[in-house]
Amino acid sequence: MSAPVYLDHAATTPLRPEVRDAWLETQQLVGNASSIHGAGQQARRVLEDARERLAAVLGCEPIEVVLTSGGTESIGLALQGLWRSRATSAERIVLPDGEHHATLDTVGWLASHEGSSVTPVSLDAAGRIPVEAFMAALAEHTGPDVESTMRASATTRRDAAKDAAPASPRGSGQMRSGSARAAVATALVAGNETGTVNDAAGLSRAAADAGVPLHLDAVAAFGHVGVEFSGWRGDASPGTGLVALSVSGHKIGAPVGTGALVVSRTATVEPLLHGGGQQRGLRAGTQDIAGAVALARAAELAELEREAEAMRLGELRERFLSALRRDIPEAVVLGDPEHRLPGTIHLHLPGAGGESLLFLLDQRGISVSTGSACQAGVAEPSHVVMALGYSQTEASQVLRISLGRTTTAEDVDALAGALPVSYRRLAAR
Amino acid sequence: MSAPVYLDHAATTPLRPEVRDAWLETQQLVGNASSIHGAGQQARRVLEDARERLAAVLGCEPIEVVLTSGGTESIGLALQGLWRSRATSAERIVLPDGEHHATLDTVGWLASHEGSSVTPVSLDAAGRIPVEAFMAALAEHTGPDVESTMRASATTRRDAAKDAAPASPRGSGQMRSGSARAAVATALVAGNETGTVNDAAGLSRAAADAGVPLHLDAVAAFGHVGVEFSGWRGDASPGTGLVALSVSGHKIGAPVGTGALVVSRTATVEPLLHGGGQQRGLRAGTQDIAGAVALARAAELAELEREAEAMRLGELRERFLSALRRDIPEAVVLGDPEHRLPGTIHLHLPGAGGESLLFLLDQRGISVSTGSACQAGVAEPSHVVMALGYSQTEASQVLRISLGRTTTAEDVDALAGALPVSYRRLAAR
Repeated sequence: MSAPVYLDHAATTPLRPEVRDAWLETQQLVGNASSIHGAGQQARRVLEDARERLAAVLGCEPIEVVLTSGGTESIGLALQGLWRSRATSAERIVLPDGEHHATLDTVGWLASHEGSSVTPVSLDAAGRIPVEAFMAALAEHTGPDVESTMRASATTRRDAAKDAAPASPRGSGQMRSGSARAAVATALVAGNETGTVNDAAGLSRAAADAGVPLHLDAVAAFGHVGVEFSGWRGDASPGTGLVALSVSGHKIGAPVGTGALVVSRTATVEPLLHGGGQQRGLRAGTQDIAGAVALARAAELAELEREAEAMRLGELRERFLSALRRDIPEAVVLGDPEHRLPGTIHLHLPGAGGESLLFLLDQRGISVSTGSACQAGVAEPSHVVMALGYSQTEASQVLRISLGRTTTAEDVDALAGALPVSYRRLAAR
Repeated sequence: MSAPVYLDHAATTPLRPEVRDAWLETQQLVGNASSIHGAGQQARRVLEDARERLAAVLGCEPIEVVLTSGGTESIGLALQGLWRSRATSAERIVLPDGEHHATLDTVGWLASHEGSSVTPVSLDAAGRIPVEAFMAALAEHTGPDVESTMRASATTRRDAAKDAAPASPRGSGQMRSGSARAAVATALVAGNETGTVNDAAGLSRAAADAGVPLHLDAVAAFGHVGVEFSGWRGDASPGTGLVALSVSGHKIGAPVGTGALVVSRTATVEPLLHGGGQQRGLRAGTQDIAGAVALARAAELAELEREAEAMRLGELRERFLSALRRDIPEAVVLGDPEHRLPGTIHLHLPGAGGESLLFLLDQRGISVSTGSACQAGVAEPSHVVMALGYSQTEASQVLRISLGRTTTAEDVDALAGALPVSYRRLAAR
């Protein structure tokens, strides 16, 4: 077997050597940043320097950067925290189709355990959130009959397990008498499966106009799309429009276990973790200084190289797609042809189960995905692809190929060579 | 100035070289443990091997190890998760005095936001939780007048900030009509300030007898006390007695940002983070494989060296205390003389503010603490020392000296030499 070909960078991408070195150097510091002795204060200076550098890349103020353990925690803190801070006056959560499971399952939990209701937003055929549809979902409902819709896409295998547990006193079925106002809205900056990029500034404006706080999940976008927290937020009033934005470290070459939630200084977010009062009281726990430095370094490098890397990956993508169009003309490239991440290739391959295809490619040493890695352990059709209008069967005939920093022309050629054979074998059955 | 003397290992202790090497080696793996391709499955094997090794040190089954971002998250998951899974049938939380702020503030939040009530347990003069007092607090209240006590110790500066935020619909003041049964109990295995070690097995038996689930905070104890989850749990019925136990990596030479919550396989815990369904659905998020391997390695090393290191630190402690008894005879060693961590020295130094003393020692390059690092940024008298029966003034005249793996005789001699001068300077004022 030839050298392994890793084309699943959207699931996780290797630690960058420069980032590893920054992590190692920082680990030589001894001291807890909460300690008041000199060692602690030196640690704190290094931590705050990292926070400043990260803030510069994210386009926000340093105090707005809340370091977390990664994307899932950032999303959970944003959605649970914003919902809880608003739950007395509003109850709806505006949830576009096709969000990541960290978002779907958090919203599902709030619906089943804390009495929120959900207003879905349909995507367009390219997987984009239409800003007008988002505005309509944000608008205050006038009738008394608020639709308490939990979409099939937000009901996962874990809900079944939860249903077996004793319901909380705020549990499902206990319809709250709250208003029809939207408590919080959420949206992906870029889809983790399709790679489709949304109009972040437009979504923020829509939320600001409706007086609703917006969380953006920038986990898949970070490093590929220029994140401009303050710019996207624009002149939104305090607590409305874009107020929180999630990023994860391991998608950009920082260690797993690092990440951040940007929280607007004027937003009210109820914390998930309580204790030492670190990070504006929003996220208690000893702060991971080496992780923060590693995340800042990875973010700076990604930003520095972003445009050149987008061009390079775009060329590799086009190289692969030319071969694909020739060898598998029936393949459909999903997502938005214009607004998209440079290195993500999401394919519908009619007649071939994505999981079987993945296994055949894996036998040849090629790693790809059927969709979000977090769900890939379970053979479920992609809710994202169904949100594009595909059937359940079609939504299981998909492959996500994601290029990254270490991807070479040889890698994409290896895939382009292997895919047609494997595909014909499956599609012919 | 001579070489820095770091005697604050209870706040955080340096990354061990062996652990760093294990982390680095694991980072060479490429793949998300949730991915089904070969790279992902190899990553998963390494992760599960680490989980098994960690379970062996903690005396539990591998499936019971839930990896988290550290002690604060573990404690939050245990207390919020156990409380939410029981909140329909019980409302009290049994909370000994002198717990860590991660516990105090989580319980305080549950009381002010989710309607729990708190039953305190007084410590004995050595800082130990009397098992009989714990049993009495666990016992079902018979009268209708459940005391909804939030102790002063659980009301921190952050509660003031929270009060300014809009109250949640389950907010304070809305006394729930729940029963007088205890929903959950919590206790420290060893105090992070005093170093006093509790009777973990006895506390578990008491909780089992009362039919209440118990969380143990083993963050300060881990690495110094042999943790025996199954042994302490004994033959408790499912969901009662010891069901959850928190540990943190950076207290034993693993990276900050690593930790675990042991969750009994028969316990019901509502998750804090929702998403990819990782770790029995109890803790969603991409799993940090390098962090898991680092934590397992640090745990194995600490366990391997535990007895010899306890003897070595005990001798260093005695060496320091002999000098102290000679030079500052009025100093009082706090905590239990028998049941205690080997490397923690908690002192009451009459007439000298701990924080001022800390600064004077820091000027000589010696790092010590006044108490929990997480609170040390704020000049508050120690709630732990007050729980021992000291006044507020006395509780601010304390110093915590914590020895660790890198501590030498020269370090303790440097402190023994510097402390009397600094102390006399302050006490004479």
